[in-house]
Amino acid sequence: MREIGVGLIGTGFMGKCHALAYGAMVPIFGGPLRPKLLKLADADPSIGAQRAAEFGFAEAVTDWRAIIADPAIALVSITTPNALHREMAEAALAAGKHVWCEKPMGLTLADAESMAAAAQTATGRTQLGYNYIRNPLIAEAKRLIEAGELGRITHFRGAVDEDYMADGDIPWSWRCRLADAGLGALGDIMVHLVSLAHTLMGGIDSLTAQIETIHKTRPLPDRPGESGAVENEDAAQALVRFASGASGVLATSRAAWGRKNRLGFEIHGTKGTLIYDQERMNELQFFSASGDASTRGFRTILSGPVHAPYGAFCPAPGHGLGFNDLKVIELNGLLRAIDGQADPLAVDFAAGLAIERVIHAMVTSAQTGTWIGLPA
Amino acid sequence: MREIGVGLIGTGFMGKCHALAYGAMVPIFGGPLRPKLLKLADADPSIGAQRAAEFGFAEAVTDWRAIIADPAIALVSITTPNALHREMAEAALAAGKHVWCEKPMGLTLADAESMAAAAQTATGRTQLGYNYIRNPLIAEAKRLIEAGELGRITHFRGAVDEDYMADGDIPWSWRCRLADAGLGALGDIMVHLVSLAHTLMGGIDSLTAQIETIHKTRPLPDRPGESGAVENEDAAQALVRFASGASGVLATSRAAWGRKNRLGFEIHGTKGTLIYDQERMNELQFFSASGDASTRGFRTILSGPVHAPYGAFCPAPGHGLGFNDLKVIELNGLLRAIDGQADPLAVDFAAGLAIERVIHAMVTSAQTGTWIGLPA
Amino acid sequence: MREIGVGLIGTGFMGKCHALAYGAMVPIFGGPLRPKLLKLADADPSIGAQRAAEFGFAEAVTDWRAIIADPAIALVSITTPNALHREMAEAALAAGKHVWCEKPMGLTLADAESMAAAAQTATGRTQLGYNYIRNPLIAEAKRLIEAGELGRITHFRGAVDEDYMADGDIPWSWRCRLADAGLGALGDIMVHLVSLAHTLMGGIDSLTAQIETIHKTRPLPDRPGESGAVENEDAAQALVRFASGASGVLATSRAAWGRKNRLGFEIHGTKGTLIYDQERMNELQFFSASGDASTRGFRTILSGPVHAPYGAFCPAPGHGLGFNDLKVIELNGLLRAIDGQADPLAVDFAAGLAIERVIHAMVTSAQTGTWIGLPA
Amino acid sequence: MREIGVGLIGTGFMGKCHALAYGAMVPIFGGPLRPKLLKLADADPSIGAQRAAEFGFAEAVTDWRAIIADPAIALVSITTPNALHREMAEAALAAGKHVWCEKPMGLTLADAESMAAAAQTATGRTQLGYNYIRNPLIAEAKRLIEAGELGRITHFRGAVDEDYMADGDIPWSWRCRLADAGLGALGDIMVHLVSLAHTLMGGIDSLTAQIETIHKTRPLPDRPGESGAVENEDAAQALVRFASGASGVLATSRAAWGRKNRLGFEIHGTKGTLIYDQERMNELQFFSASGDASTRGFRTILSGPVHAPYGAFCPAPGHGLGFNDLKVIELNGLLRAIDGQADPLAVDFAAGLAIERVIHAMVTSAQTGTWIGLPA
Repeated sequence: MREIGVGLIGTGFMGKCHALAYGAMVPIFGGPLRPKLLKLADADPSIGAQRAAEFGFAEAVTDWRAIIADPAIALVSITTPNALHREMAEAALAAGKHVWCEKPMGLTLADAESMAAAAQTATGRTQLGYNYIRNPLIAEAKRLIEAGELGRITHFRGAVDEDYMADGDIPWSWRCRLADAGLGALGDIMVHLVSLAHTLMGGIDSLTAQIETIHKTRPLPDRPGESGAVENEDAAQALVRFASGASGVLATSRAAWGRKNRLGFEIHGTKGTLIYDQERMNELQFFSASGDASTRGFRTILSGPVHAPYGAFCPAPGHGLGFNDLKVIELNGLLRAIDGQADPLAVDFAAGLAIERVIHAMVTSAQTGTWIGLPA
Repeated sequence: MREIGVGLIGTGFMGKCHALAYGAMVPIFGGPLRPKLLKLADADPSIGAQRAAEFGFAEAVTDWRAIIADPAIALVSITTPNALHREMAEAALAAGKHVWCEKPMGLTLADAESMAAAAQTATGRTQLGYNYIRNPLIAEAKRLIEAGELGRITHFRGAVDEDYMADGDIPWSWRCRLADAGLGALGDIMVHLVSLAHTLMGGIDSLTAQIETIHKTRPLPDRPGESGAVENEDAAQALVRFASGASGVLATSRAAWGRKNRLGFEIHGTKGTLIYDQERMNELQFFSASGDASTRGFRTILSGPVHAPYGAFCPAPGHGLGFNDLKVIELNGLLRAIDGQADPLAVDFAAGLAIERVIHAMVTSAQTGTWIGLPA
Repeated sequence: MREIGVGLIGTGFMGKCHALAYGAMVPIFGGPLRPKLLKLADADPSIGAQRAAEFGFAEAVTDWRAIIADPAIALVSITTPNALHREMAEAALAAGKHVWCEKPMGLTLADAESMAAAAQTATGRTQLGYNYIRNPLIAEAKRLIEAGELGRITHFRGAVDEDYMADGDIPWSWRCRLADAGLGALGDIMVHLVSLAHTLMGGIDSLTAQIETIHKTRPLPDRPGESGAVENEDAAQALVRFASGASGVLATSRAAWGRKNRLGFEIHGTKGTLIYDQERMNELQFFSASGDASTRGFRTILSGPVHAPYGAFCPAPGHGLGFNDLKVIELNGLLRAIDGQADPLAVDFAAGLAIERVIHAMVTSAQTGTWIGLPA
Repeated sequence: MREIGVGLIGTGFMGKCHALAYGAMVPIFGGPLRPKLLKLADADPSIGAQRAAEFGFAEAVTDWRAIIADPAIALVSITTPNALHREMAEAALAAGKHVWCEKPMGLTLADAESMAAAAQTATGRTQLGYNYIRNPLIAEAKRLIEAGELGRITHFRGAVDEDYMADGDIPWSWRCRLADAGLGALGDIMVHLVSLAHTLMGGIDSLTAQIETIHKTRPLPDRPGESGAVENEDAAQALVRFASGASGVLATSRAAWGRKNRLGFEIHGTKGTLIYDQERMNELQFFSASGDASTRGFRTILSGPVHAPYGAFCPAPGHGLGFNDLKVIELNGLLRAIDGQADPLAVDFAAGLAIERVIHAMVTSAQTGTWIGLPA
């Protein structure tokens, strides 16, 4: 098996998640490439050294440019705060690397456009961290749709809600500032819902939206009794029209108490309905308007080996994949693409730009109160 | 106990439902008034006679005006097709009757306005058939909101979906023609969702919407191979802004395979979340952002005697109310109002007009692509 | 339509439930007989008078024997405490009445045997209050089983749990005394589970059981600081072997916190599985080992008009029956039987005796620690 | 970080699962020991070589005794068919190794007793593959019980059902023969349920059981039209009495259509109830008999960082662990124990023997029809 040299920038939540994926890749899938973990970048040398040892990287570096400069590294993972994605990704692409970058692409639409332009002329592959579309049950949903089991698809209704900003007492931080953090719930989580919509429904033609900041100020952590303005949105909702003609509703909140990863949708077709909820990621609900009327009903499909690539993780059905497993499937897609194979679920920088155009159009629509068209 | 003379116009689905409510009223609630079932109107004399015997009415009449003309009748139930509501209701009000009319009020907004104007100057009470707001668990939801258990309410997300028009092979009928049937899913079922939103969230300030006809033609029943145009909508979605400042999404479809009475919502507040689904009408989901973090979760509240007036039906919790039971509670509200008591959940013609303004604003918005304001 | 004179003994929970059923019978089913409500018996004359007025009975009596003595009464409802069932039922049967008696039959197996013997020689029909088997979805389950959709039935696993005695602070009452109340959870609720097992699986051949009293004493209401012994069981579990060869587990508790009417089962067959839970009485879960493996799953069947006699209550599916509706279906079965029609779900005194033999065998087995055989 | 040399015997379902756990150990937990993957044994040299390369082992061997003989190996994973466990485990223990062995221990109770005796005098640690008890939500359940949140625990009702032998057309194999495979559903899956019961309820004092083979013969794969006898059980059910005095029901089937990994239980206490289902392994249901009666209900607790060690996998709640993650937690327990730390959830060979005594007592009870006592 051919090796591929890997550099990882960032050691937080998603940095660890990438590292786990690199480690599990060959044991799970047996290929197609063997990641060779060369350099891990963290600005803090002691954290970097510890994480490199834990994650299995040969070396820790404090300057991410050392990864770009290393000719042995062909694939660069970028898991730093969003404000840094663009510079790192563009440098990596310029150096001929493949880039696996967490979503969203950057703080602004201009960032995303610039990154997509860079990718278009680069020799390296790009991939964004849209892990949820990698669920074998999403592949099954796509298969059912494409096989016509739902008939003509008429409607997509989705929401992605969490409660990580639901508590008004969470203090103000740089994450509340547009210039530092970019968008709020739209950039953090709505992009995941859009990625699912694009995967299953195709492109969005136009939309109208409203957005809101539920907690308009938050207590300043270092000045008791004072508070700072929250500049980005806690929640947003949009009506959309897909290029296919289907209608849709997309909603998000990062202040929805009790929701932890409630990324869900229902899809209506002229012959059936699908329902999905990421909090129960090993289940897909399917109603088929066929068969005996007295026993029709939404059926709960439990994921299993019949839904590839579940079987690579476990030969027994219903045993359950977890969040980190989806990242391994995502990496598998990227490595297969690098290896010259097809990856029908790929979200490269061009596809990522299409996603970010949607969330930025939501902002524009909310400001103007009008429907906004999106490029085909 | 005082008696109240009752006349019922219509013997179909909702006619039977009203009749059952009249019969169960005193056994269930022990008052406040005893319905005396005097006249039942059906244009078909043999059906009328049979239903009068079954439903316990003293007499069947073929002309509904005989009910209006009967001085012994103080309360008139109107359960005929929507196109007939206005004339019947206005005649009954003009004759000094109380009117219990099924929803929607009429075919057009002008109908509803006229009926509301008639009610305003009438001596009789009016009530529309918004049965779902009568669920004891909706009263519990309202209590929780008003008690501040959810904090500031920030969002309402609701949908009402059924599949009675999902099959494209259902033949064309007068129900597909605007002039005969009025609106489609908006008038049939969206009004129920709006009634819940109004009950729990207060008035809607403005909205933007899209509507669509999924099956644009249907086979003509008497002309093989030909089809007729469907003029009213199968589905609609709207973004709304409540007068309170909260945001909302309302969606409906009468072509959502597998959904039978999926009238549901979730309400987000700064301290908690509520979730409801009419298909599981004896359950309310509540998440409270209080207590030990390790055991927080959505709790499934089963309805019971602690949720009045459940106990009037059954002293044991979790035994389950049904669809027809809600109609008895609705009638109880009306009779209490007629008896001079408070009915905080009443939807009279004025409140009904506010509901119909919402659905007609959705149509206008869908035509213009703009946000539409609603009167306070 | 022929009338049938009715007398009702008892005005509590189940008395009201019977009264509601009598009132709804003709409006719901349009026949086959019209109940004429003649006499209502309650030892307290003021309660009796009030309930008679509310329930629509012509007259209240304080001595139940006045009902037995009334030649115009052909059908007697018995809804009094269990200790009184036998005397009343046998008197009614001796007088040639039809008897509709709440379950369990009596305090002891001897009571049940005596009642069954009386019924055998009587001219009147008998029926016990096993309402849950009247759910249209139970009929659907029976249909699926009999049609072979589940293949050979191999296993029944059921439980019936409530929490009405879960709180150890509920004071001691006569209900805790065997001589007054008879069995505890076995007589109150396990009989319902057995009725479902008999309906769907056929007779039980043998069983072994354990029973227990969780709160062995309860505070005496009138003597602060003192407590009285609880003589009947809070919980029981049994392994059973059906005559068909299938195995089973039956469990019950009246002290299961959070369970309100959790009467549920799963049935395993060589081609499929059924799951039911009375707390979601409008849903039946069905897994069929047929069709495409990738979309198999438990399907949630919502009750609707396709499941007779749901349509008599509501022409729209998924709108939901309630607890009291089942009693109307139960009464319909009895009246049809009295009218000479078939009632395949009937539980007459002979069938009721078979149920009570099961619960008493559980007690015996728990005492001896052995398997107990039951008559075929 | 100290290294620990590892040898793995077996490369199938559980062999891969162990390999994944070894690889994820340090990235997930950062310690306490770093597994150094030295030798992988598979009788087939080409499979062994491929798996060694994939799983990251330095070397493949065809004779497992090469692992026992390697002084650099301190920890031996045994994931071969059950018939081989005893010989391998005892050899490893005799060589002073730590042993991580899949369940069940062996084919017979004598095997388990012998292995437990060997462990008692060995210097190495032992651990059996009871992964489900490692779910952070099971730890939370245990914490709630020990903190008294459920009051006195009175009842455990559990089942473990799958459908891997539900299809009667699955051909006969050595797995159907007692001498080769040992017990059926009891050894395969009931042991998991017993491990949960022991973890949460403590020891079982006595039991009575029935067992059955649903498909008594299966088609012989190589002789068309002929069939072979199935010697081990497809299903079993037992009543148990815990040493604590609580009652219990344990049931299992490997022929329950639609169940894939339905390992579930409910626990009743005098103050609350817990419900768990492995098919929704990231959810725990908890009912507390405290707080306002109108909002009590089963709450669905989603696993998150508040439930250690979830946070080692993901800092965001509700994102979901999977089946393979539990194995990493299990390994973490073993390595901590080897490192001299406490592992309160450990199932060593002594604890494993207690589990196997339970399933063998079920067989004995089923044969004798009597209650069987178990050693304290």
